[in-house]
Amino acid sequence: MNKVILLNKRPVGKPTLDDFKIINEETPVAKDGEILLKTVYVSVDPYLRGRMNDSKSYIPPFELNKPIQSGIIAEVIDSKYSGSLKKGDFVSGNLDWKEYQVSNGKGVHKVDENEVKLSAYLGILGMTGLTAYLGLTEIGLPKKDETIVVSGAAGAVGTVVGQIGKLLSCKVVGITGSDEKVELLKSKFRFDHAINYKTTPDLKEAIKTVCPKGVDIYFDNVGGDISDAVLANINKHARLPVCGAISLYNDTKVAFGPRLQTIILTKSATMRGFIVSDFFEKFPAATKQLTIWLKENNITFSETIVEGFDNIPQAFIDLFEGKNEGKMIVKI
Amino acid sequence: MNKVILLNKRPVGKPTLDDFKIINEETPVAKDGEILLKTVYVSVDPYLRGRMNDSKSYIPPFELNKPIQSGIIAEVIDSKYSGSLKKGDFVSGNLDWKEYQVSNGKGVHKVDENEVKLSAYLGILGMTGLTAYLGLTEIGLPKKDETIVVSGAAGAVGTVVGQIGKLLSCKVVGITGSDEKVELLKSKFRFDHAINYKTTPDLKEAIKTVCPKGVDIYFDNVGGDISDAVLANINKHARLPVCGAISLYNDTKVAFGPRLQTIILTKSATMRGFIVSDFFEKFPAATKQLTIWLKENNITFSETIVEGFDNIPQAFIDLFEGKNEGKMIVKI
Repeated sequence: MNKVILLNKRPVGKPTLDDFKIINEETPVAKDGEILLKTVYVSVDPYLRGRMNDSKSYIPPFELNKPIQSGIIAEVIDSKYSGSLKKGDFVSGNLDWKEYQVSNGKGVHKVDENEVKLSAYLGILGMTGLTAYLGLTEIGLPKKDETIVVSGAAGAVGTVVGQIGKLLSCKVVGITGSDEKVELLKSKFRFDHAINYKTTPDLKEAIKTVCPKGVDIYFDNVGGDISDAVLANINKHARLPVCGAISLYNDTKVAFGPRLQTIILTKSATMRGFIVSDFFEKFPAATKQLTIWLKENNITFSETIVEGFDNIPQAFIDLFEGKNEGKMIVKI
Repeated sequence: MNKVILLNKRPVGKPTLDDFKIINEETPVAKDGEILLKTVYVSVDPYLRGRMNDSKSYIPPFELNKPIQSGIIAEVIDSKYSGSLKKGDFVSGNLDWKEYQVSNGKGVHKVDENEVKLSAYLGILGMTGLTAYLGLTEIGLPKKDETIVVSGAAGAVGTVVGQIGKLLSCKVVGITGSDEKVELLKSKFRFDHAINYKTTPDLKEAIKTVCPKGVDIYFDNVGGDISDAVLANINKHARLPVCGAISLYNDTKVAFGPRLQTIILTKSATMRGFIVSDFFEKFPAATKQLTIWLKENNITFSETIVEGFDNIPQAFIDLFEGKNEGKMIVKI
C-alpha cells in the first residue's frame, strides 16, 4: 500500500494535524513512458501555508482532498521511460506527498548524490539557496561595507542570506527567536551580530545599537512588528526584499501596523516582494555560484531532519513555532 | 521695506496661519558678485509640510524664525554679478519667501519668458513635471496597454502623470476629491476614468470596476485608505512609485493601516519612494521631452494662482483641503 497526505480542510489560523489526512491507496505501477518514484526527502516550507488558503496567491491553492505538494527528492525504482532517467537515479521536483508516485519525467530533474548530499538539493542548491542568493543580489543589490539585516535569520533562507552577505563583504545582523539560535548565527553562519527578539525589550533601539551606520538592506522573512523595528532604522535608498511574512501567514483577519508610505518616501526606499521563480532565467548562474561556494566550504547549511512519512504534517506545523534550525526536511 | 515669511512655530497636525510670521526687514542691496532678485511667483507644495517638522527627512527641516524656502521665479532687478545674469532676466531657484533677496547666482538658473509662460518653470518644466515624468518612467516603467492609477490625480503632479500615461499608450484612472475634478480629469487631462473618493462608498470595488484587468502601476501621492483600496487591486509585478503621502503629512501620531507585506509579497510588487533629485542625472533628458510635448500641445497643465505675498501661508494651508487644481502658485 501507498501512503498519501491530503489537505483535509483549510487551516484557520495556525495549521493543526486535523487539517491533514493520511490515506492508503494502491501503490502505482509505471506504465510506458513513466518512472516510478520512491520519496526519500520531503521539504516543508512556510510558503505552503499560503497555498492552503482558498485565495489567489502567486501559485494556485491546494485542492481539498487532494495531495499536498512540495519539493521532494525521490529515487527512481522502476523506469519505463524513454529519456535518460533510469532505475537507481535520484530526482528532484515539486511532487505529491506520497510514498510512491509515477511521473512522466516532466518537472523533475536528475540530481547527483556523489556531488553533495541529496538533501542539499532541497536546500542550498534548491529553491532555498536560489531564494537567498537571488533575493539578496537582485533586489538587495549589496555593496561592500553595507549593513544587511535579516529576519527569520536562523531559518533555511536566512542562514544562507547571512553567509552570502559576508561573502559579499557586508556587515550582517540577524534577528531570531532564541539565544541558542543567536549563538549559532554568530558561530556557524558568520553573522556579525544576532538579536533574540523575544528577549529584547526595545528591538528598534537594539538594531540601532548594532547598526550605527543604519540599515541598507533588510531581507524580510517575517513581516509584522519585527519589520517595523528594522524599517525605523533604514538608510536613504535602502532596499527591502520581501521574501516571506511568516508572522502574518496564520492571521485570520487583516493585520494592522504603522503605515509604511512615509518612511518609504522619506528614505527613497525600495520594498519589493518576490518569489524565486521571478528570477527563473538566473537560476543556472546562481546555482553555479552557490555550488562553487559550497565546494570551497565558503558556505554551510543547517538541516533539521525529521524522520517518517507520517510526521510530515507535524514538521510543517513546527515551522511556525520556529522549531527548525535551517532547512526543515522529512526523511522517509 | 521687504516682507519676509518665517516659520513661527512647528505645526502640530494641520498647519495654521499662526505657524507663520510675516516680518519687515530692510530691503537688501546687491553687493559685488551679487544680483538683487524680486520675487514674482512662489510655488507652494505639500512636501514643504515635512520640512516644518523637527525631524530628519530627505531634506533638512526648516529652522524656527528663519524664512521658509520653496521654488520661486524672480526677476533680476539689479546685477553686480560677474556671470551672465543681468537686469531684466528671470531666474528660477529654491529661494526664501521674501519679496526681495540677493543671490550670488548659485542655485538659480535663467528661464526664458518667451519660451513658455514663466509660472510653467515652477510646474510642468520644473520640479512638478520632472517628478511626474521621472517617477512614472523610472519607477512605474509603463508598458503599452497597462493600467495606471493615480491618486491626488487633480494635483500638480497627478495631472501630469495622467497625461504622460496616455502619451505612453496606457489606460489611466485618477482618484480625486470632487465631482468637478472628476470631470476636469476626463475632459482636460485625458484620463480614461476618474473616481471621487469622497462620494464612493466602496473605493476598492469602484477601482475594480474601472480596472477590469487590474492595476499595473499605482502612482501614489496620498497614502492612507485610498492607497489601501488601490493596492487591493494590483496585478502581479505591479510597480508602486510613492511620490507623496499628503493624507499622512499632518498626522500627529503614527497612522496605522493594513500591513502591506503580504500583498507586496504575493504580487511580487515593487513599492519605491522617491524625491525627484534621486534622478538628478536624468533632468536634462526629461526636461527636453516635457518641452517637446508642451510645444506640440500634447500636454497641458493647470494652475491655481493666488495673488499677494501675504497670502502664501494660506495658499499652502489650502493644499491640504484640496483647494488647488493643478499647481498652486502665489503671484506677487
